[in-house]
Amino acid sequence: MLHYPEAVDQLIDELRTLPGVGRRAAERMALALLERDDASLMTLGGIISAIPEKVWRCPECGVMADKGETCEICSSPRRDRTLLCVVENMSQLLAVESSCQYNGTYLVLGGHISPIDDELGTKLNLEGLKRKASSGTVKEIILALSSDVEGRATAAFLAEMLAEYPDIRVSRPALGLPAGANLSYANAATIGAALRGRTVENS
Amino acid sequence: MLHYPEAVDQLIDELRTLPGVGRRAAERMALALLERDDASLMTLGGIISAIPEKVWRCPECGVMADKGETCEICSSPRRDRTLLCVVENMSQLLAVESSCQYNGTYLVLGGHISPIDDELGTKLNLEGLKRKASSGTVKEIILALSSDVEGRATAAFLAEMLAEYPDIRVSRPALGLPAGANLSYANAATIGAALRGRTVENS
Repeated sequence: MLHYPEAVDQLIDELRTLPGVGRRAAERMALALLERDDASLMTLGGIISAIPEKVWRCPECGVMADKGETCEICSSPRRDRTLLCVVENMSQLLAVESSCQYNGTYLVLGGHISPIDDELGTKLNLEGLKRKASSGTVKEIILALSSDVEGRATAAFLAEMLAEYPDIRVSRPALGLPAGANLSYANAATIGAALRGRTVENS
Repeated sequence: MLHYPEAVDQLIDELRTLPGVGRRAAERMALALLERDDASLMTLGGIISAIPEKVWRCPECGVMADKGETCEICSSPRRDRTLLCVVENMSQLLAVESSCQYNGTYLVLGGHISPIDDELGTKLNLEGLKRKASSGTVKEIILALSSDVEGRATAAFLAEMLAEYPDIRVSRPALGLPAGANLSYANAATIGAALRGRTVENS
């Protein structure tokens, strides 16, 4: 079998670390990149290398923004500053935004607490959350974390931390059946939660 | 909806040009890249930008190789130099290599002729092929091109070009049923070719 030049091997290894990219897909991408002309490779490489100097996390909420500027959400006059939604990362934030049901501000934690690790959130933006909570503006904090073990552990940890601020309502998104789902395929925990949180239709 | 910073939009657009990567996958990759630390982004960017100075196409056959060196195949003493296999690109070459049935050398064309375009192979490495053909070493040239319209057009064009060298046998891989295939699902053209090229089992 033919071996790849070392630079190509490195490229394949790097591409494999991207989400959803396995060995074969990484090889295919690397071969496609090798077909490109030099200028196109320098452009792509340059765009990736330049990310640290062009993009940062908004110092107020952690949302990605052009370096030196506050993010689109924090600088928007139309956002409701009494509502704060806590998410783990940018993709969760984009998921909340895509619902078009939320017009408040955000706090991007930068991860979750894993009950197995000992870290207990040393890497999380807890300072940012405390700053927001003690600002006096926020009336409700929605802990929009995943409903898996890590998400629940993180939510429990944050709820405890936020007990310091009794004037702020702390909420979580409802648990229940996903929209468009067949009841037969829902798992027992989901059905249980959906029944406990049932809504009245005829009042 | 939240807009991405411009650098992130550029990154997503670039990632989308990779094979098998659509809008959603590119966004997911970009968000994953944004979660990385600066050093890791500089590494990935650097690896891609450095490709032009670290990798080139072997001047003899067009196979990718460390810059300044002939490729592994051309420099191997175990390769049969009387056999030359013409492929369009590196991934076709790797497909042939993966069969473990070929021990000759290669010529990477760098593309195919599209009967719809007018170009007729101006970008193809035809000079390299002529050089190989007139070297006196090559006894057979296998046109291992795809069996689609472009591949067949390219093979026909090359066969005509190689008519100049009557001492060289020009061949093509057999058409037939793919290994492990159910006859019911093969298309008519494939079955026709498989019947015309049938092999005798009892002689």
